[in-house]
Amino acid sequence: MADTGGIARDQLKSIVERVERLEEEKAALAADIRDVYAEAKGNGYDVKALRRVVRERKLDRAEFQEQEAIIDLYRHALGLEV
Amino acid sequence: MADTGGIARDQLKSIVERVERLEEEKAALAADIRDVYAEAKGNGYDVKALRRVVRERKLDRAEFQEQEAIIDLYRHALGLEV
Amino acid sequence: MADTGGIARDQLKSIVERVERLEEEKAALAADIRDVYAEAKGNGYDVKALRRVVRERKLDRAEFQEQEAIIDLYRHALGLEV
Amino acid sequence: MADTGGIARDQLKSIVERVERLEEEKAALAADIRDVYAEAKGNGYDVKALRRVVRERKLDRAEFQEQEAIIDLYRHALGLEV
Repeated sequence: MADTGGIARDQLKSIVERVERLEEEKAALAADIRDVYAEAKGNGYDVKALRRVVRERKLDRAEFQEQEAIIDLYRHALGLEV
Repeated sequence: MADTGGIARDQLKSIVERVERLEEEKAALAADIRDVYAEAKGNGYDVKALRRVVRERKLDRAEFQEQEAIIDLYRHALGLEV
Repeated sequence: MADTGGIARDQLKSIVERVERLEEEKAALAADIRDVYAEAKGNGYDVKALRRVVRERKLDRAEFQEQEAIIDLYRHALGLEV
Repeated sequence: MADTGGIARDQLKSIVERVERLEEEKAALAADIRDVYAEAKGNGYDVKALRRVVRERKLDRAEFQEQEAIIDLYRHALGLEV
């Protein structure tokens, strides 16, 4: 393995190329997600609301309900009616 | 004004130092905000809920209510009861 | 398709589930990338420097070289020797 | 102090309003920073390079130099000449 300044050039190259391949796959998935949201928008759905419920579905249900209850309490106290 | 490679050194220095001073002031304000939240937490408030209502108070009221109505609709359709 | 408030429940569910599957795959790839960096760290590589060169390899070469030349010029003018 | 659901309404309001005032000041400083960069751009400076040297001036000098030396080593090994 050709070295340069104590660096195993081939090993470094393989590390960087593995990351690049994985990042490419990840970018493709990100594009697929954007496509799903764009398609939903085309069908009349609200993307911001979709993203919110996708996020909320990941939360522990009891914690989520408790958090929303506190938020409602603060909203009400501040006159921030929904 | 001493130059280096066509760069007016004093002018560059003054630009950078102005940004640094402003960034320092901004960092101090960010620390003050964290202190207010820490104090509120000490008084039993839920910081995540506080941050949410602070964010929501900045929104246009009608838009905010419409957005929350859509989110509730999607939650209900997905069985994500609050 | 059962409806709720004008929302095609099954269609909404399928949109959300498609996003969730794609997000899961994306999270797995992010974990793989972290593993590659962790393995490289174990082999003595500097992860911050690796991330920088991975980022730089994506840039247009001429733009990258021009940008680095300007940065060197500013560093020199500010006495920020490398 | 009028209460609502165990929340001291006035106390909550004062917390939220303190955060809002501080956030306003912080946003004003962020705008001032953008103005300095815009002015510099008008005088022919490269904003991306300016931001980089502002960031680098915050780093510990020895650490910064060591980091840049490693990056150069990796660049050279990967044929990413500057």
